[in-house]
Amino acid sequence: MQGICETIPALAAEKYVYDFDEPSDGGRELLGGKGIGLAEMTQLGIPVPAGFTITTDACRAYMASPGGLPDGLEEEVEEHLRALEERTGKRFGDPNDPLLVSVRSGAAISMPGMMDTILNVGLNDVSVDGLARATGNEWFARDCYRRLIEMYGETVDDVHNRRFDADRESPADAIERLRATYREGTGSDFPQDPREQLHHAIVAVFESWQSPRAQAYRRMYEIPDDLGTAVNIVQMVFGNKGDNSGTGVAFTRDPSTGEQGLYGEFLTNAQGEDVVAGIRTPEPIAQMREQLPAPFEQLLETMRRLEEHYRDMQDIEFTVEDNALYLLQTRSAKRTAAASVKAAVDMVEEGLITHEEAVARIDPQQLDQLLHPMLDPTAEWEVAAKGLNASPGAAAGKIVLDADTAERRGKAGEKVILVRWETTPDDIHGLIHAAGILTAHGGMTSHAAVVARGMGKPCVAGCDTLSIDIDARKITLRDQTLSEGDVLTIDGGTGAVIVGEVPLVPPQVNDDLETILGWGDEHRRLGVRANADTPEDAAKAREFGAQGIGLCRTEHMFMAEDRLPVVREMILAEDEHGRRAALDKLLPMQQGDFEAIFEVMAGLPVTIRLLDPPLHEFLPSLEQAKDERMRRRIKQLQESNPMLGTRGCRLGLQWPEIYEMQVRAIVRAARGVEERTGDAPLVEIMHPLVAFEEELRRLRELTVQVADEEAPDVEYLCGTMIELPRACIRADEIAKHADFFSFGTNDLTQTALGFSRDDAEGKFLTFYLEDGVLERNPFETLDQSGVGDLMRIGVERGRARKPQLKLGICGEHGGEPKSVAFCHELGLDYVSCSPFRVPLARLAAAQAALAEAGSPAYATAGG
Amino acid sequence: MQGICETIPALAAEKYVYDFDEPSDGGRELLGGKGIGLAEMTQLGIPVPAGFTITTDACRAYMASPGGLPDGLEEEVEEHLRALEERTGKRFGDPNDPLLVSVRSGAAISMPGMMDTILNVGLNDVSVDGLARATGNEWFARDCYRRLIEMYGETVDDVHNRRFDADRESPADAIERLRATYREGTGSDFPQDPREQLHHAIVAVFESWQSPRAQAYRRMYEIPDDLGTAVNIVQMVFGNKGDNSGTGVAFTRDPSTGEQGLYGEFLTNAQGEDVVAGIRTPEPIAQMREQLPAPFEQLLETMRRLEEHYRDMQDIEFTVEDNALYLLQTRSAKRTAAASVKAAVDMVEEGLITHEEAVARIDPQQLDQLLHPMLDPTAEWEVAAKGLNASPGAAAGKIVLDADTAERRGKAGEKVILVRWETTPDDIHGLIHAAGILTAHGGMTSHAAVVARGMGKPCVAGCDTLSIDIDARKITLRDQTLSEGDVLTIDGGTGAVIVGEVPLVPPQVNDDLETILGWGDEHRRLGVRANADTPEDAAKAREFGAQGIGLCRTEHMFMAEDRLPVVREMILAEDEHGRRAALDKLLPMQQGDFEAIFEVMAGLPVTIRLLDPPLHEFLPSLEQAKDERMRRRIKQLQESNPMLGTRGCRLGLQWPEIYEMQVRAIVRAARGVEERTGDAPLVEIMHPLVAFEEELRRLRELTVQVADEEAPDVEYLCGTMIELPRACIRADEIAKHADFFSFGTNDLTQTALGFSRDDAEGKFLTFYLEDGVLERNPFETLDQSGVGDLMRIGVERGRARKPQLKLGICGEHGGEPKSVAFCHELGLDYVSCSPFRVPLARLAAAQAALAEAGSPAYATAGG
Repeated sequence: MQGICETIPALAAEKYVYDFDEPSDGGRELLGGKGIGLAEMTQLGIPVPAGFTITTDACRAYMASPGGLPDGLEEEVEEHLRALEERTGKRFGDPNDPLLVSVRSGAAISMPGMMDTILNVGLNDVSVDGLARATGNEWFARDCYRRLIEMYGETVDDVHNRRFDADRESPADAIERLRATYREGTGSDFPQDPREQLHHAIVAVFESWQSPRAQAYRRMYEIPDDLGTAVNIVQMVFGNKGDNSGTGVAFTRDPSTGEQGLYGEFLTNAQGEDVVAGIRTPEPIAQMREQLPAPFEQLLETMRRLEEHYRDMQDIEFTVEDNALYLLQTRSAKRTAAASVKAAVDMVEEGLITHEEAVARIDPQQLDQLLHPMLDPTAEWEVAAKGLNASPGAAAGKIVLDADTAERRGKAGEKVILVRWETTPDDIHGLIHAAGILTAHGGMTSHAAVVARGMGKPCVAGCDTLSIDIDARKITLRDQTLSEGDVLTIDGGTGAVIVGEVPLVPPQVNDDLETILGWGDEHRRLGVRANADTPEDAAKAREFGAQGIGLCRTEHMFMAEDRLPVVREMILAEDEHGRRAALDKLLPMQQGDFEAIFEVMAGLPVTIRLLDPPLHEFLPSLEQAKDERMRRRIKQLQESNPMLGTRGCRLGLQWPEIYEMQVRAIVRAARGVEERTGDAPLVEIMHPLVAFEEELRRLRELTVQVADEEAPDVEYLCGTMIELPRACIRADEIAKHADFFSFGTNDLTQTALGFSRDDAEGKFLTFYLEDGVLERNPFETLDQSGVGDLMRIGVERGRARKPQLKLGICGEHGGEPKSVAFCHELGLDYVSCSPFRVPLARLAAAQAALAEAGSPAYATAGG
Repeated sequence: MQGICETIPALAAEKYVYDFDEPSDGGRELLGGKGIGLAEMTQLGIPVPAGFTITTDACRAYMASPGGLPDGLEEEVEEHLRALEERTGKRFGDPNDPLLVSVRSGAAISMPGMMDTILNVGLNDVSVDGLARATGNEWFARDCYRRLIEMYGETVDDVHNRRFDADRESPADAIERLRATYREGTGSDFPQDPREQLHHAIVAVFESWQSPRAQAYRRMYEIPDDLGTAVNIVQMVFGNKGDNSGTGVAFTRDPSTGEQGLYGEFLTNAQGEDVVAGIRTPEPIAQMREQLPAPFEQLLETMRRLEEHYRDMQDIEFTVEDNALYLLQTRSAKRTAAASVKAAVDMVEEGLITHEEAVARIDPQQLDQLLHPMLDPTAEWEVAAKGLNASPGAAAGKIVLDADTAERRGKAGEKVILVRWETTPDDIHGLIHAAGILTAHGGMTSHAAVVARGMGKPCVAGCDTLSIDIDARKITLRDQTLSEGDVLTIDGGTGAVIVGEVPLVPPQVNDDLETILGWGDEHRRLGVRANADTPEDAAKAREFGAQGIGLCRTEHMFMAEDRLPVVREMILAEDEHGRRAALDKLLPMQQGDFEAIFEVMAGLPVTIRLLDPPLHEFLPSLEQAKDERMRRRIKQLQESNPMLGTRGCRLGLQWPEIYEMQVRAIVRAARGVEERTGDAPLVEIMHPLVAFEEELRRLRELTVQVADEEAPDVEYLCGTMIELPRACIRADEIAKHADFFSFGTNDLTQTALGFSRDDAEGKFLTFYLEDGVLERNPFETLDQSGVGDLMRIGVERGRARKPQLKLGICGEHGGEPKSVAFCHELGLDYVSCSPFRVPLARLAAAQAALAEAGSPAYATAGG
């Protein structure tokens, strides 16, 4: 028995090759995107050249022991090649009328331009003449041969050539030149054996999967390294056979707008690489109707059938050989967010897809494009410098070098770009009044970046070729020197910095997007709120469909110009009495802040976080301090690791009068707004940085006491941020005193990983990401297995103690699609993110719900 | 049916009172320490006054609804009072020969002096004369009455009096004076009804459980608030009846040394309070042999029986009335560490207790006393200032104000005390050569404190009345100004700072302690290692019984005077080449360091942690930097939160040449020592601050590669610190690449709680501890429910992946008894602590093992 079992694996030899008309169970993963498309088209009866696919399994086997092809593969290829010869009636290597093939890469996930293709494999010095005779077209035959030598040399042997220029050189001359270069580069002649060519071409495609640029692309798009590529061996059809031939690419709808109708480009008497490489300028595809009317009609009909079959917008490659149309590839079309949205809504109307599929089709990450002004794509510009794409959108304005100037000129109606080494909370008034922010220093989570994203304002951060001479009021961008007042345009979506003004186009929010978000909302389980500190932000949030405010920070209110002196008075006070006197002055201002926000959010929940940052953030720097008392206090408040110091509820416990004032302002404002408008806001009072049950017990007591004293009829919830590992671990104890938890995943990431946000980017985290120690920035994409698992513990333990505990997230991860899906899975009640990311979060939440419900949209869509 | 069930609880009335001769199942918890002692002595036939005990249950019922006594209690008291009257033949309230009682508190855990006692309850204006007649001793009767009024006034009604002075006042005058004060203080006359007196006395004892001083005491000694106190009502016996009477306290052995033999004090013609309150100076108990020979012999015999019964050293109170001996109390004696050890060993030899019980008897926390020099208790001194007792032991020496001077004078053989605002790693050479350290700033985990404890050197830290004028080379302690060179004595065990030299007594390590530790080692499951960075520390550790080194830090080696310039050269190098050149110079030095340690630790494991601190710690401060290049580098390396910045394995990954050099030095040293001595050290290479699997995967690869290249035959383990929450959470993944984990609970506490050690003490943590938000400093006692639960997750997940994973702890908690017990429970393989805490950890680990094994020592011992 055992003997038999042991031999079975050896007997069941791997099958590595499938003809296009041969069914397989492996689908896209096994055959790659191009292979599955060719097989499906073949099986649909759409004209496709004959051929076969070497599977991704073969590529993985090759990667496991590189150098030689996996056992049995060459025999299989030979077998399928013979079948191809039979089908086409031509012979591979025939000196008179040879069968030629293309060897094309094709991974399961499209990586455009990343891997290699070789055309015309099978030609040699002898058969080129045979081909010339058989087609009666010597130019064509020599053109085919020179393409083979050129592509083969580059791909297989890394021999690079001057490009062919038909105006200055004949194909025959080119062949001579290329052969000489090949000999020079490799030390041997261009291989004449067609089977040797084929073998090396297959190896080269496998190798191209591991090329540095392919690896970089996969890292960027988070494509697993072990997918591998398939190799398609396809009978050559020739678009370069004369004026009845041609080649083109086409989309079934406009990939920029989503409008229906054919969209693409076309070249007569050309092979595909000419279109892709931009050697000749292609014509709009509509021209084909005149030049090749029959193939054009056939193309229209084929594209209709493909959309019907795939129920999605397609991007195809085709060739016409002597008026006969061949499809070489079909795939789901890459498109702009606008096109994505428009096409999905149209397809629902056309009955092609369901609401659920339409929701599934939109990439939430792409929506950012729709929600900010952009550089006018028809304008021309030159990028003077590049920084990090820290906050999307574009802005143009005059350079200003400090926050006061930004405020003054901004208030005066000028568009200004605030340009700083980096920003601090002291600059907040300048940020508010700037159209955009450009910094030389700091990363994606620097102060400028975070604040700008919160405000939905463009920001380019960490632009390291920018230097600022504040005394001379000048900046230098690489080698260009500009003065304050000169005009600059920045694109926070790409990180581009442009000297001068580039025209902008307004955000493309439209009814189609609202329609799809509405369809998604029907399925969504997760609530979506916004982080908003001002009535303006709150209004924006509501406009984008936020169902409440999940995080209203109060420190920005303390920073306002009219408050800061009073806040400093409070901090400098010698005793509680002095502090209370200052706080009494702040109370009506805070109350006003809250009233304005409550009015905008009438009927919706508003979570207000009590004061969180260390007090020294409200004081000037030691150098700027004017008197000894201030200097002493600054020194007293200095901390080695302020992130882990006297902040959050530690402030509220040590100086309870601060939180008392804030609670008083909140309940007064709530009562006032209710009396005035009849609509009560749903107030949630949130205590930050709780680690121990006793902290929240005391603060809840304080909250209840002040609220009872002030406005016993106002209803509110009292809860806490969960932003420290201990709070997750002891969520059971903390839940006793909380009506809600809001996961603060920014700080939770800092403490769980021991990564200071301020110190990680541009330093070790940048190194980690570049060097591949980490695949993703944990401040952008939630570290699900680490930080996420702590959250899971927090959810389980918190709900075990109090099943009705309300759970949300208000870190920046709340607006990142993968993290939103994770929050859905955790069973949170809501996510909260910057107003501009609310649509994105709504969509991601809907997709998570649909995926969980096993919606068929999630089995068929994507690709 | 239901009706019956419901009424059962009401029918089963609570029993609140037990006569001394009435058995109960409740033991010490129910009857309190004094009550159980009186009951047990009564039942042993030892002469004890008659009486009864009101249980702690009654106290708890009283606390649940204070004001009145619990239902049924007064009736029970009345019933037992009648039984007492029958037994004594006297009547409570009899005007002629009244029964008098004392009302004494007594909790389950002794709280000496914290709660109240009232003597002579039952006397009034009438019966005082009856008592005088019945005893024929008017002075005695009046003396009893004045004591009652005095104690009752203080205890029940909070009326405080001038003390009685027999030389200046008669008891009769005192009565008049006390009655007047009582009337003034309370507005009514001293109560004449004995039953009213008794009622209020009981209430007063219950109330005393809740007094602020009792609460403070419980907090300090971690005694639960809901234990409650029992109340003992005891027939009065009178030591103040004349020269045939007296009272005393005695220990069955010397509580200072543990030497066998009677030890105590005695007063003729006195009541117990006179001894306790120090009103009259008592005589050594040996005097009693002459004055009261018969009671003395009886006392000796009774004490022998008590030790035999309790199998522990006893502390008793007794009274002699007319030559008749009565025991009023017996309890386990409080004693010094030395006495504890000596008595336990003696009792094993005497056959009184087992080895296990001897081990159980020693409080590990107390051992610190034995392992450091102390101030001579016979000397006199005045405390000039107080700081934190940061590192135990005492030292006297000349004041020096900087590390260089400390080193120079220390090397020259002078005893010096290094006095600094605070210390930094730059001061390490000064710390090494100082006899003790005094700082004005910093807490229990400040640099000075941590390093001093590691070195077993006295340190008083955070002495806030100390100021230093470095220019004038003077210091001020409160209002005394001293110059560099003046002599100071510090006591790191108490935090005392004394001007001038106080004589010291050497540490009392002795054979008895070794004997007990040896008995404990037989039961211990947890290994005990030491944290040691030098051969000297390693030797000390071995001497104290360490079974290896659990943490050898390499950064101190980098700080040494001859290394620092080379280390700086490495940090300032422009490229890898420059860094390698500097590292090549460091290599032989590091190798030498390791060789010296390996030789001392021959045959035992040595865990070496690769470089951990951020590089800027090796550079001078920005102000001290001498050239622009240095300043630029310092600025580059500056971080907002260095704790969460570029340190630990993040250094090793970014500049692998540093760790390569260290690994090379380690394996070379290991090979060298093995070749020279034939004894291979068991090397464990430890990578710090790992959060992600990929970090350790790469570092393990580096380690293996260098070791294979350098000395393929050297055996070693490769592991990691677990000191970040994420590392606990993803211990399963990290374990794949680790042979061992060592929990770094210092940093784990910082990150899990979000508490910066540098910023917590003296700031919010001090406030938290003072205000009771936290009961214990989590940097001293492991936060078991938070940090400990993270460790538990780490242990479970790590061992699930790799069952043979070696687990240890090397945070400072490794030397704290409660945390050692927790580590035992977690199933760690070893704890590692400073060399001086090794005996303590051995003992705590043995106790944990015995407790777990259910050793009867842990059921009977303690109290």
